[in-house]
Amino acid sequence: MYYGYFNGTIAPTDQLAVGVTDLSLLRGYGLFDYFLTYNGRPFQWDWYWERFQNSASRMHLPLPLSKDETYAIVMNLVERSNEASLKTGLTSLNDLAFRFILTGGYSADSISVVRPNLLILAEMIHPTPTIQYEQGIKVILDEYVREMAEVKSTDYKRVILMAEAIRAARASDLLYQKGGEISELSRSNFFIVKGDRLITPDRHILHGITRKTVIQLAQSDFQVDERPVLLSELYDADEAFTTSSTKKVLPITQIGDLTIGDGYVGPKAKFLLERFDELVKTW
Amino acid sequence: MYYGYFNGTIAPTDQLAVGVTDLSLLRGYGLFDYFLTYNGRPFQWDWYWERFQNSASRMHLPLPLSKDETYAIVMNLVERSNEASLKTGLTSLNDLAFRFILTGGYSADSISVVRPNLLILAEMIHPTPTIQYEQGIKVILDEYVREMAEVKSTDYKRVILMAEAIRAARASDLLYQKGGEISELSRSNFFIVKGDRLITPDRHILHGITRKTVIQLAQSDFQVDERPVLLSELYDADEAFTTSSTKKVLPITQIGDLTIGDGYVGPKAKFLLERFDELVKTW
Repeated sequence: MYYGYFNGTIAPTDQLAVGVTDLSLLRGYGLFDYFLTYNGRPFQWDWYWERFQNSASRMHLPLPLSKDETYAIVMNLVERSNEASLKTGLTSLNDLAFRFILTGGYSADSISVVRPNLLILAEMIHPTPTIQYEQGIKVILDEYVREMAEVKSTDYKRVILMAEAIRAARASDLLYQKGGEISELSRSNFFIVKGDRLITPDRHILHGITRKTVIQLAQSDFQVDERPVLLSELYDADEAFTTSSTKKVLPITQIGDLTIGDGYVGPKAKFLLERFDELVKTW
Repeated sequence: MYYGYFNGTIAPTDQLAVGVTDLSLLRGYGLFDYFLTYNGRPFQWDWYWERFQNSASRMHLPLPLSKDETYAIVMNLVERSNEASLKTGLTSLNDLAFRFILTGGYSADSISVVRPNLLILAEMIHPTPTIQYEQGIKVILDEYVREMAEVKSTDYKRVILMAEAIRAARASDLLYQKGGEISELSRSNFFIVKGDRLITPDRHILHGITRKTVIQLAQSDFQVDERPVLLSELYDADEAFTTSSTKKVLPITQIGDLTIGDGYVGPKAKFLLERFDELVKTW
Protein backbone atom coordinates (compact mmCIF):
# COMPACT_ATOMS: atom_id res chain seq x y z
CA MET A 1 0.00 0.00 0.00
CA TYR A 2 1.27 3.47 -0.91
CA TYR A 3 0.72 6.65 1.03
CA GLY A 4 0.35 10.19 -0.15
CA TYR A 5 0.16 13.72 1.17
CA PHE A 6 -2.42 16.29 0.05
CA ASN A 7 -2.49 19.80 1.54
CA GLY A 8 -1.61 18.64 5.05
CA THR A 9 -3.34 15.25 5.09
CA ILE A 10 -1.50 11.92 4.85
CA ALA A 11 -3.55 8.91 3.72
CA PRO A 12 -3.35 5.84 1.48
CA THR A 13 -3.10 7.14 -2.09
CA ASP A 14 -6.36 5.53 -3.18
CA GLN A 15 -8.22 7.53 -0.52
CA LEU A 16 -6.91 10.88 -1.77
CA ALA A 17 -9.05 12.90 -4.16
CA VAL A 18 -9.05 16.37 -5.63
CA GLY A 19 -12.15 18.57 -5.81
CA VAL A 20 -13.60 19.37 -9.22
CA THR A 21 -12.71 23.07 -9.24
CA ASP A 22 -8.98 22.36 -9.30
CA LEU A 23 -7.28 24.26 -12.12
CA SER A 24 -5.36 21.20 -13.30
CA LEU A 25 -8.67 19.56 -14.09
CA LEU A 26 -10.37 22.69 -15.47
CA ARG A 27 -7.43 24.37 -17.21
CA GLY A 28 -4.48 22.00 -17.35
CA TYR A 29 -2.61 24.27 -14.92
CA GLY A 30 -0.19 22.07 -13.04
CA LEU A 31 3.40 20.99 -12.78
CA PHE A 32 5.12 18.00 -11.27
CA ASP A 33 8.35 16.25 -10.53
CA TYR A 34 9.25 12.61 -10.18
CA PHE A 35 12.17 10.81 -8.58
CA LEU A 36 13.12 7.48 -7.03
CA THR A 37 14.58 6.49 -3.70
CA TYR A 38 17.63 4.27 -3.55
CA ASN A 39 18.34 2.46 -0.29
CA GLY A 40 15.41 4.38 1.17
CA ARG A 41 16.90 7.79 0.37
CA PRO A 42 15.67 10.23 -2.32
CA PHE A 43 18.12 10.16 -5.23
CA GLN A 44 19.70 13.57 -6.07
CA TRP A 45 17.25 15.29 -3.71
CA ASP A 46 18.94 18.71 -3.93
CA TRP A 47 18.72 18.77 -7.70
CA TYR A 48 15.11 17.56 -7.83
CA TRP A 49 14.03 20.09 -5.25
CA GLU A 50 15.78 22.88 -7.18
CA ARG A 51 14.02 21.88 -10.38
CA PHE A 52 10.62 21.58 -8.70
CA GLN A 53 11.10 25.04 -7.18
CA ASN A 54 12.13 26.42 -10.57
CA SER A 55 9.07 24.94 -12.33
CA ALA A 56 6.82 26.43 -9.63
CA SER A 57 8.42 29.83 -9.95
CA ARG A 58 8.18 29.78 -13.78
CA MET A 59 4.47 28.99 -13.45
CA HIS A 60 4.00 31.70 -10.79
CA LEU A 61 2.87 29.23 -8.13
CA PRO A 62 4.19 29.74 -4.59
CA LEU A 63 5.39 26.54 -2.90
CA PRO A 64 3.37 25.87 0.26
CA LEU A 65 6.22 23.93 1.97
CA SER A 66 9.91 24.52 2.55
CA LYS A 67 12.58 22.08 1.34
CA ASP A 68 13.05 20.63 4.84
CA GLU A 69 9.31 20.26 5.49
CA THR A 70 8.94 18.50 2.16
CA TYR A 71 11.86 16.18 2.87
CA ALA A 72 10.32 15.24 6.22
CA ILE A 73 7.03 14.36 4.50
CA VAL A 74 8.85 12.26 1.89
CA MET A 75 10.63 10.29 4.62
CA ASN A 76 7.36 9.91 6.54
CA LEU A 77 5.72 8.46 3.42
CA VAL A 78 8.67 6.10 2.88
CA GLU A 79 8.21 4.82 6.43
CA ARG A 80 4.44 4.42 6.25
CA SER A 81 4.50 2.77 2.85
CA ASN A 82 7.14 0.33 4.11
CA GLU A 83 5.23 -0.43 7.33
CA ALA A 84 2.12 -1.15 5.30
CA SER A 85 4.10 -3.49 3.02
CA LEU A 86 5.60 -5.35 6.00
CA LYS A 87 2.12 -5.89 7.47
CA THR A 88 1.01 -7.58 4.28
CA GLY A 89 3.84 -10.10 4.68
CA LEU A 90 6.52 -8.66 2.42
CA THR A 91 9.89 -9.03 4.10
CA SER A 92 12.14 -6.75 2.06
CA LEU A 93 11.75 -3.01 1.86
CA ASN A 94 11.57 -1.85 -1.70
CA ASP A 95 12.47 1.50 -3.09
CA LEU A 96 9.70 3.86 -4.14
CA ALA A 97 8.94 6.44 -6.75
CA PHE A 98 7.76 9.88 -5.65
CA ARG A 99 5.54 12.21 -7.60
CA PHE A 100 5.12 15.83 -6.56
CA ILE A 101 2.16 17.59 -8.18
CA LEU A 102 1.53 21.30 -7.75
CA THR A 103 -1.64 22.65 -9.35
CA GLY A 104 -3.23 26.08 -9.69
CA GLY A 105 -5.53 25.05 -6.82
CA TYR A 106 -9.26 25.49 -6.40
CA SER A 107 -10.76 28.34 -8.36
CA ALA A 108 -14.25 29.77 -7.88
CA ASP A 109 -14.26 31.51 -11.29
CA SER A 110 -12.45 28.58 -12.96
CA ILE A 111 -9.53 30.74 -14.12
CA SER A 112 -7.93 32.68 -11.22
CA VAL A 113 -5.21 31.15 -9.08
CA VAL A 114 -5.76 31.63 -5.35
CA ARG A 115 -3.75 28.97 -3.50
CA PRO A 116 -1.97 26.01 -5.14
CA ASN A 117 -2.78 22.42 -4.24
CA LEU A 118 0.21 20.21 -3.43
CA LEU A 119 0.22 16.44 -3.71
CA ILE A 120 3.16 14.24 -2.73
CA LEU A 121 2.54 10.65 -3.79
CA ALA A 122 4.59 7.55 -3.05
CA GLU A 123 4.23 5.15 -5.97
CA MET A 124 5.37 1.76 -7.13
CA ILE A 125 8.37 1.93 -9.47
CA HIS A 126 7.61 0.63 -12.97
CA PRO A 127 11.03 -0.75 -13.94
CA THR A 128 12.10 -0.80 -17.58
CA PRO A 129 11.92 -4.39 -18.92
CA THR A 130 15.35 -6.10 -19.02
CA ILE A 131 14.90 -7.04 -22.67
CA GLN A 132 14.91 -3.34 -23.57
CA TYR A 133 18.40 -2.98 -22.07
CA GLU A 134 19.56 -6.06 -23.95
CA GLN A 135 18.12 -5.16 -27.36
CA GLY A 136 17.71 -1.41 -27.22
CA ILE A 137 14.44 0.32 -28.07
CA LYS A 138 12.90 1.74 -31.21
CA VAL A 139 11.55 5.28 -31.25
CA ILE A 140 9.73 7.18 -33.97
CA LEU A 141 10.30 10.79 -34.98
CA ASP A 142 7.59 13.33 -34.28
CA GLU A 143 7.61 16.95 -35.46
CA TYR A 144 6.88 18.65 -32.17
CA VAL A 145 8.46 20.73 -29.47
CA ARG A 146 7.08 21.05 -25.95
CA GLU A 147 5.80 24.46 -24.88
CA MET A 148 7.99 25.75 -22.05
CA ALA A 149 10.06 22.58 -22.31
CA GLU A 150 12.27 23.58 -19.34
CA VAL A 151 9.27 23.58 -17.03
CA LYS A 152 8.02 20.18 -15.91
CA SER A 153 4.38 21.10 -16.52
CA THR A 154 1.88 18.26 -16.58
CA ASP A 155 1.28 18.77 -20.30
CA TYR A 156 1.94 15.38 -21.91
CA LYS A 157 -1.02 15.44 -24.31
CA ARG A 158 1.20 14.79 -27.29
CA VAL A 159 2.51 11.36 -26.34
CA ILE A 160 -0.92 10.13 -25.21
CA LEU A 161 -2.39 11.36 -28.48
CA MET A 162 0.33 9.48 -30.37
CA ALA A 163 0.00 6.23 -28.39
CA GLU A 164 -1.66 4.40 -31.31
CA ALA A 165 1.00 5.55 -33.78
CA ILE A 166 3.77 4.38 -31.42
CA ARG A 167 2.14 0.98 -31.01
CA ALA A 168 1.49 0.65 -34.75
CA ALA A 169 5.22 1.23 -35.42
CA ARG A 170 6.15 -1.31 -32.71
CA ALA A 171 8.10 1.50 -31.09
CA SER A 172 8.47 2.51 -27.43
CA ASP A 173 8.39 6.26 -27.62
CA LEU A 174 8.61 9.46 -29.66
CA LEU A 175 11.74 11.43 -30.47
CA TYR A 176 10.73 15.08 -30.91
CA GLN A 177 12.30 17.19 -33.64
CA LYS A 178 11.33 20.53 -35.09
CA GLY A 179 12.76 21.81 -38.35
CA GLY A 180 15.42 19.10 -38.22
CA GLU A 181 16.60 19.90 -34.71
CA ILE A 182 16.24 17.15 -32.13
CA SER A 183 15.11 18.01 -28.59
CA GLU A 184 14.11 15.04 -26.44
CA LEU A 185 11.92 11.95 -26.12
CA SER A 186 8.43 12.37 -24.70
CA ARG A 187 9.60 11.85 -21.09
CA SER A 188 13.38 11.46 -21.27
CA ASN A 189 16.53 13.05 -22.67
CA PHE A 190 18.51 12.06 -25.74
CA PHE A 191 22.21 11.38 -26.35
CA ILE A 192 24.26 10.19 -29.28
CA VAL A 193 27.77 8.72 -29.11
CA LYS A 194 30.47 9.37 -31.74
CA GLY A 195 33.83 7.90 -30.77
CA ASP A 196 34.64 9.32 -27.32
CA ARG A 197 32.15 12.11 -27.70
CA LEU A 198 28.76 12.28 -26.02
CA ILE A 199 26.45 14.75 -27.76
CA THR A 200 23.14 15.88 -26.25
CA PRO A 201 20.67 18.68 -27.06
CA ASP A 202 20.87 21.70 -24.77
CA ARG A 203 17.68 23.57 -25.69
CA HIS A 204 13.91 22.97 -25.93
CA ILE A 205 14.44 20.22 -23.36
CA LEU A 206 13.55 19.41 -19.81
CA HIS A 207 16.85 19.45 -17.95
CA GLY A 208 16.80 15.89 -16.71
CA ILE A 209 18.42 14.99 -13.41
CA THR A 210 19.50 11.62 -14.82
CA ARG A 211 20.93 13.49 -17.83
CA LYS A 212 22.94 15.69 -15.46
CA THR A 213 24.06 12.66 -13.42
CA VAL A 214 25.20 10.81 -16.56
CA ILE A 215 27.10 13.86 -17.83
CA GLN A 216 28.94 13.99 -14.48
CA LEU A 217 29.70 10.27 -14.56
CA ALA A 218 30.99 10.57 -18.13
CA GLN A 219 33.41 13.46 -17.53
CA SER A 220 36.56 11.40 -17.08
CA ASP A 221 36.00 9.12 -20.09
CA PHE A 222 34.16 11.26 -22.65
CA GLN A 223 34.10 14.68 -24.15
CA VAL A 224 30.54 15.88 -23.56
CA ASP A 225 29.01 18.36 -26.01
CA GLU A 226 25.78 20.03 -24.92
CA ARG A 227 24.54 21.82 -28.04
CA PRO A 228 21.79 21.76 -30.68
CA VAL A 229 21.69 18.35 -32.39
CA LEU A 230 20.45 17.88 -35.94
CA LEU A 231 18.62 14.91 -37.42
CA SER A 232 21.39 14.59 -39.99
CA GLU A 233 23.84 13.71 -37.20
CA LEU A 234 22.01 10.45 -36.54
CA TYR A 235 23.36 8.89 -39.73
CA ASP A 236 26.94 8.49 -38.52
CA ALA A 237 26.24 8.06 -34.79
CA ASP A 238 27.86 4.99 -33.22
CA GLU A 239 25.20 4.73 -30.54
CA ALA A 240 22.17 6.53 -29.17
CA PHE A 241 20.53 6.32 -25.78
CA THR A 242 17.96 8.00 -23.58
CA THR A 243 18.10 8.91 -19.89
CA SER A 244 15.40 9.27 -17.24
CA SER A 245 14.91 8.27 -13.63
CA THR A 246 13.22 4.97 -14.50
CA LYS A 247 15.01 4.31 -17.82
CA LYS A 248 18.44 5.15 -16.35
CA VAL A 249 20.67 4.74 -19.47
CA LEU A 250 18.57 2.97 -22.09
CA PRO A 251 20.01 2.22 -25.56
CA ILE A 252 18.11 3.29 -28.68
CA THR A 253 18.91 1.05 -31.64
CA GLN A 254 16.33 2.27 -34.14
CA ILE A 255 14.90 5.71 -34.92
CA GLY A 256 12.06 5.45 -37.42
CA ASP A 257 13.51 3.55 -40.40
CA LEU A 258 17.10 4.33 -39.41
CA THR A 259 19.21 1.72 -37.64
CA ILE A 260 21.70 3.32 -35.24
CA GLY A 261 25.28 2.04 -35.61
CA ASP A 262 25.15 -1.70 -36.20
CA GLY A 263 21.71 -2.05 -34.62
CA TYR A 264 22.98 -3.64 -31.41
CA VAL A 265 23.42 -2.17 -27.96
CA GLY A 266 26.82 -0.48 -27.92
CA PRO A 267 29.66 -0.56 -25.35
CA LYS A 268 29.44 3.14 -24.38
CA ALA A 269 25.80 3.02 -23.32
CA LYS A 270 26.53 -0.21 -21.42
CA PHE A 271 29.52 1.38 -19.71
CA LEU A 272 27.49 4.41 -18.62
CA LEU A 273 24.64 2.25 -17.35
CA GLU A 274 27.15 0.29 -15.23
CA ARG A 275 28.58 3.52 -13.82
CA PHE A 276 25.05 4.68 -13.04
CA ASP A 277 24.13 1.39 -11.33
CA GLU A 278 27.31 1.60 -9.21
CA LEU A 279 26.42 5.12 -8.13
CA VAL A 280 22.90 4.27 -7.03
CA LYS A 281 23.98 1.05 -5.30
CA THR A 282 25.81 3.05 -2.65
CA TRP A 283 23.52 6.10 -2.65
CA MET B 1 -26.46 24.80 -4.50
CA TYR B 2 -25.24 23.25 -7.74
CA TYR B 3 -25.30 19.60 -8.67
CA GLY B 4 -22.94 17.58 -10.78
CA TYR B 5 -22.59 14.17 -12.37
CA PHE B 6 -19.45 12.05 -12.20
CA ASN B 7 -19.30 8.59 -13.81
CA GLY B 8 -22.89 7.70 -12.87
CA THR B 9 -23.18 9.51 -9.55
CA ILE B 10 -25.16 12.72 -9.04
CA ALA B 11 -24.27 14.87 -6.02
CA PRO B 12 -23.75 18.48 -4.97
CA THR B 13 -20.70 19.71 -6.87
CA ASP B 14 -18.66 20.37 -3.73
CA GLN B 15 -19.00 16.69 -2.78
CA LEU B 16 -17.55 15.45 -6.07
CA ALA B 17 -13.85 14.63 -6.27
CA VAL B 18 -11.50 12.95 -8.69
CA GLY B 19 -8.90 10.35 -7.67
CA VAL B 20 -5.24 11.27 -7.93
CA THR B 21 -4.40 8.91 -10.79
CA ASP B 22 -6.62 10.77 -13.24
CA LEU B 23 -4.70 11.66 -16.41
CA SER B 24 -5.92 15.26 -16.40
CA LEU B 25 -4.12 15.74 -13.09
CA LEU B 26 -1.04 13.67 -14.02
CA ARG B 27 -0.69 14.51 -17.71
CA GLY B 28 -3.02 17.37 -18.61
CA TYR B 29 -5.07 14.95 -20.73
CA GLY B 30 -8.58 16.31 -20.78
CA LEU B 31 -11.11 18.23 -22.83
CA PHE B 32 -14.24 20.11 -21.97
CA ASP B 33 -17.16 22.11 -23.23
CA TYR B 34 -19.21 24.86 -21.69
CA PHE B 35 -22.65 26.28 -22.41
CA LEU B 36 -25.53 28.13 -20.78
CA THR B 37 -29.20 27.41 -20.40
CA TYR B 38 -31.76 30.03 -21.41
CA ASN B 39 -35.27 29.68 -20.00
CA GLY B 40 -34.13 26.38 -18.52
CA ARG B 41 -33.12 24.90 -21.87
CA PRO B 42 -29.53 24.29 -23.07
CA PHE B 43 -28.64 26.90 -25.69
CA GLN B 44 -27.65 25.48 -29.10
CA TRP B 45 -27.53 21.98 -27.63
CA ASP B 46 -27.06 20.22 -30.98
CA TRP B 47 -24.05 22.31 -31.86
CA TYR B 48 -22.43 21.98 -28.43
CA TRP B 49 -22.91 18.24 -28.42
CA GLU B 50 -21.41 17.96 -31.90
CA ARG B 51 -18.36 19.95 -30.82
CA PHE B 52 -17.92 17.97 -27.60
CA GLN B 53 -18.11 14.74 -29.59
CA ASN B 54 -15.59 16.07 -32.09
CA SER B 55 -13.12 17.09 -29.35
CA ALA B 56 -13.43 13.63 -27.79
CA SER B 57 -12.86 11.91 -31.11
CA ARG B 58 -9.82 14.11 -31.90
CA MET B 59 -8.34 13.18 -28.52
CA HIS B 60 -9.16 9.48 -29.04
CA LEU B 61 -11.47 9.30 -26.02
CA PRO B 62 -14.70 7.32 -26.38
CA LEU B 63 -17.76 9.09 -24.98
CA PRO B 64 -19.33 7.00 -22.21
CA LEU B 65 -22.86 8.42 -22.79
CA SER B 66 -25.09 8.98 -25.79
CA LYS B 67 -26.46 12.40 -26.71
CA ASP B 68 -29.89 11.57 -25.28
CA GLU B 69 -28.52 10.14 -22.04
CA THR B 70 -26.39 13.24 -21.60
CA TYR B 71 -29.34 15.55 -22.28
CA ALA B 72 -31.41 13.71 -19.65
CA ILE B 73 -28.62 14.20 -17.09
CA VAL B 74 -28.36 17.90 -17.93
CA MET B 75 -32.11 18.36 -17.41
CA ASN B 76 -31.94 16.35 -14.18
CA LEU B 77 -29.18 18.65 -12.91
CA VAL B 78 -31.19 21.73 -13.91
CA GLU B 79 -34.12 20.42 -11.87
CA ARG B 80 -32.09 19.47 -8.79
CA SER B 81 -30.08 22.69 -8.77
CA ASN B 82 -33.35 24.66 -9.01
CA GLU B 83 -35.05 22.65 -6.24
CA ALA B 84 -32.06 23.25 -3.99
CA SER B 85 -32.22 27.01 -4.73
CA LEU B 86 -35.97 27.13 -3.97
CA LYS B 87 -35.40 25.41 -0.63
CA THR B 88 -32.94 28.12 0.37
CA GLY B 89 -35.69 30.73 -0.18
CA LEU B 90 -34.91 31.94 -3.70
CA THR B 91 -38.13 32.39 -5.64
CA SER B 92 -36.98 32.75 -9.23
CA LEU B 93 -35.31 30.00 -11.18
CA ASN B 94 -32.08 31.21 -12.67
CA ASP B 95 -30.31 29.92 -15.71
CA LEU B 96 -27.18 27.83 -15.26
CA ALA B 97 -23.85 27.23 -16.89
CA PHE B 98 -22.84 23.66 -17.73
CA ARG B 99 -19.32 22.33 -17.93
CA PHE B 100 -18.62 18.91 -19.46
CA ILE B 101 -15.16 17.54 -18.65
CA LEU B 102 -13.84 14.36 -20.24
CA THR B 103 -10.43 13.20 -19.05
CA GLY B 104 -8.09 10.35 -19.92
CA GLY B 105 -9.42 8.58 -16.80
CA TYR B 106 -7.58 6.69 -14.09
CA SER B 107 -4.25 5.25 -15.15
CA ALA B 108 -2.22 2.69 -13.19
CA ASP B 109 0.99 3.43 -15.10
CA SER B 110 0.26 7.19 -15.22
CA ILE B 111 0.35 7.32 -19.02
CA SER B 112 -2.05 4.78 -20.60
CA VAL B 113 -5.70 5.60 -21.23
CA VAL B 114 -8.09 2.86 -20.09
CA ARG B 115 -11.54 4.41 -19.58
CA PRO B 116 -12.28 8.15 -19.64
CA ASN B 117 -13.80 9.97 -16.67
CA LEU B 118 -16.82 12.16 -17.44
CA LEU B 119 -17.94 15.08 -15.32
CA ILE B 120 -21.05 17.15 -16.00
CA LEU B 121 -21.18 20.16 -13.70
CA ALA B 122 -23.94 22.71 -13.25
CA GLU B 123 -22.36 26.04 -12.33
CA MET B 124 -23.31 29.60 -11.52
CA ILE B 125 -23.07 31.91 -14.54
CA HIS B 126 -20.45 34.64 -14.13
CA PRO B 127 -22.03 37.42 -16.19
CA THR B 128 -19.84 39.98 -17.95
CA PRO B 129 -19.98 43.32 -16.06
CA THR B 130 -22.35 45.85 -17.69
CA ILE B 131 -19.65 48.50 -17.76
CA GLN B 132 -17.65 46.34 -20.21
CA TYR B 133 -20.57 46.46 -22.68
CA GLU B 134 -20.82 50.23 -22.24
CA GLN B 135 -17.14 51.05 -22.56
CA GLY B 136 -15.70 48.08 -24.43
CA ILE B 137 -12.68 46.15 -23.20
CA LYS B 138 -8.95 46.43 -23.69
CA VAL B 139 -6.93 43.38 -24.74
CA ILE B 140 -3.19 42.95 -25.20
CA LEU B 141 -1.45 41.14 -28.03
CA ASP B 142 0.36 37.90 -27.28
CA GLU B 143 2.53 35.96 -29.73
CA TYR B 144 1.00 32.54 -29.29
CA VAL B 145 -1.19 30.01 -31.00
CA ARG B 146 -3.03 27.23 -29.19
CA GLU B 147 -1.93 23.66 -29.94
CA MET B 148 -4.83 21.83 -31.60
CA ALA B 149 -6.87 25.03 -31.41
CA GLU B 150 -9.98 23.34 -32.88
CA VAL B 151 -10.12 20.91 -29.97
CA LYS B 152 -11.49 22.28 -26.72
CA SER B 153 -8.75 20.69 -24.63
CA THR B 154 -8.36 21.90 -21.06
CA ASP B 155 -5.00 23.50 -21.91
CA TYR B 156 -5.35 27.14 -20.85
CA LYS B 157 -1.90 27.46 -19.27
CA ARG B 158 -1.02 30.48 -21.37
CA VAL B 159 -3.68 32.88 -20.10
CA ILE B 160 -3.14 31.88 -16.47
CA LEU B 161 0.59 32.38 -16.93
CA MET B 162 -0.08 35.84 -18.41
CA ALA B 163 -2.57 36.92 -15.72
CA GLU B 164 -0.10 39.37 -14.16
CA ALA B 165 0.79 40.92 -17.52
CA ILE B 166 -2.92 41.39 -18.31
CA ARG B 167 -3.56 43.05 -14.95
CA ALA B 168 -0.47 45.25 -15.28
CA ALA B 169 -1.76 46.53 -18.65
CA ARG B 170 -5.23 47.12 -17.13
CA ALA B 171 -6.53 44.84 -19.85
CA SER B 172 -9.17 42.08 -19.74
CA ASP B 173 -7.66 39.43 -21.95
CA LEU B 174 -5.09 38.37 -24.55
CA LEU B 175 -5.46 38.53 -28.31
CA TYR B 176 -3.30 35.77 -29.79
CA GLN B 177 -1.30 36.39 -32.97
CA LYS B 178 1.51 34.47 -34.58
CA GLY B 179 3.68 35.96 -37.29
CA GLY B 180 1.20 38.81 -37.70
CA GLU B 181 -1.86 36.58 -38.12
CA ILE B 182 -4.60 36.94 -35.53
CA SER B 183 -6.41 33.84 -34.25
CA GLU B 184 -8.55 34.39 -31.15
CA LEU B 185 -8.70 35.65 -27.58
CA SER B 186 -7.77 33.27 -24.79
CA ARG B 187 -11.33 31.95 -24.41
CA SER B 188 -13.37 33.69 -27.11
CA ASN B 189 -13.45 34.49 -30.83
CA PHE B 190 -12.52 37.70 -32.58
CA PHE B 191 -14.28 39.87 -35.16
CA ILE B 192 -13.57 43.20 -36.82
CA VAL B 193 -16.11 45.42 -38.59
CA LYS B 194 -15.33 47.45 -41.72
CA GLY B 195 -18.40 49.16 -43.17
CA ASP B 196 -20.96 46.40 -43.68
CA ARG B 197 -18.36 43.67 -43.53
CA LEU B 198 -17.75 41.35 -40.58
CA ILE B 199 -14.31 39.76 -40.75
CA THR B 200 -13.29 36.88 -38.48
CA PRO B 201 -10.34 34.44 -38.48
CA ASP B 202 -11.12 30.97 -39.78
CA ARG B 203 -8.04 29.01 -38.70
CA HIS B 204 -6.04 28.24 -35.54
CA ILE B 205 -9.26 28.92 -33.63
CA LEU B 206 -11.79 27.10 -31.54
CA HIS B 207 -14.97 27.16 -33.58
CA GLY B 208 -17.15 29.02 -31.11
CA ILE B 209 -20.86 28.30 -30.94
CA THR B 210 -21.55 31.97 -30.15
CA ARG B 211 -19.36 32.88 -33.14
CA LYS B 212 -21.49 30.60 -35.34
CA THR B 213 -24.72 32.01 -33.88
CA VAL B 214 -23.59 35.60 -34.48
CA ILE B 215 -22.57 34.81 -38.06
CA GLN B 216 -26.07 33.40 -38.65
CA LEU B 217 -27.72 36.44 -37.05
CA ALA B 218 -25.58 38.75 -39.17
CA GLN B 219 -26.32 37.17 -42.57
CA SER B 220 -29.09 39.54 -43.64
CA ASP B 221 -27.30 42.77 -42.69
CA PHE B 222 -23.60 42.07 -43.21
CA GLN B 223 -21.21 40.44 -45.58
CA VAL B 224 -19.35 37.93 -43.42
CA ASP B 225 -15.75 37.04 -44.37
CA GLU B 226 -14.26 34.02 -42.60
CA ARG B 227 -10.58 34.09 -43.55
CA PRO B 228 -7.08 34.70 -42.12
CA VAL B 229 -6.92 38.16 -40.48
CA LEU B 230 -3.69 40.13 -40.20
CA LEU B 231 -2.63 42.53 -37.47
CA SER B 232 -2.26 45.26 -40.08
CA GLU B 233 -6.03 45.11 -40.68
CA LEU B 234 -6.70 46.46 -37.19
CA TYR B 235 -5.55 49.95 -38.15
CA ASP B 236 -8.55 50.82 -40.32
CA ALA B 237 -11.17 48.68 -38.53
CA ASP B 238 -14.33 50.58 -37.53
CA GLU B 239 -15.05 48.25 -34.64
CA ALA B 240 -13.83 45.04 -33.01
CA PHE B 241 -15.61 42.62 -30.74
CA THR B 242 -15.30 39.20 -29.19
CA THR B 243 -17.87 36.43 -28.83
CA SER B 244 -18.33 33.65 -26.29
CA SER B 245 -21.17 32.08 -24.37
CA THR B 246 -20.76 34.37 -21.35
CA LYS B 247 -19.44 37.45 -23.22
CA LYS B 248 -22.11 37.19 -25.94
CA VAL B 249 -21.05 40.12 -28.24
CA LEU B 250 -18.55 42.21 -26.29
CA PRO B 251 -16.94 45.30 -27.88
CA ILE B 252 -13.13 45.67 -27.89
CA THR B 253 -12.10 49.32 -27.96
CA GLN B 254 -8.37 48.98 -27.39
CA ILE B 255 -5.78 46.43 -28.53
CA GLY B 256 -2.43 47.09 -26.89
CA ASP B 257 -1.62 50.72 -27.68
CA LEU B 258 -4.02 50.86 -30.60
CA THR B 259 -7.43 52.46 -30.20
CA ILE B 260 -10.03 50.78 -32.40
CA GLY B 261 -12.15 53.22 -34.47
CA ASP B 262 -12.93 56.24 -32.33
CA GLY B 263 -12.41 54.32 -29.07
CA TYR B 264 -16.12 54.06 -28.27
CA VAL B 265 -18.49 51.11 -28.54
CA GLY B 266 -19.75 51.07 -32.12
CA PRO B 267 -23.27 50.64 -33.53
CA LYS B 268 -22.60 47.31 -35.29
CA ALA B 269 -21.48 45.47 -32.14
CA LYS B 270 -24.47 46.97 -30.29
CA PHE B 271 -26.83 45.86 -33.06
CA LEU B 272 -25.49 42.28 -33.00
CA LEU B 273 -25.70 42.11 -29.21
CA GLU B 274 -29.36 43.18 -29.42
CA ARG B 275 -30.07 40.51 -32.03
CA PHE B 276 -28.35 37.95 -29.81
CA ASP B 277 -30.32 39.01 -26.73
CA GLU B 278 -33.59 38.76 -28.71
CA LEU B 279 -32.70 35.25 -29.82
CA VAL B 280 -31.94 33.95 -26.33
CA LYS B 281 -34.98 35.67 -24.78
CA THR B 282 -37.29 33.31 -26.66
CA TRP B 283 -34.97 30.26 -26.71
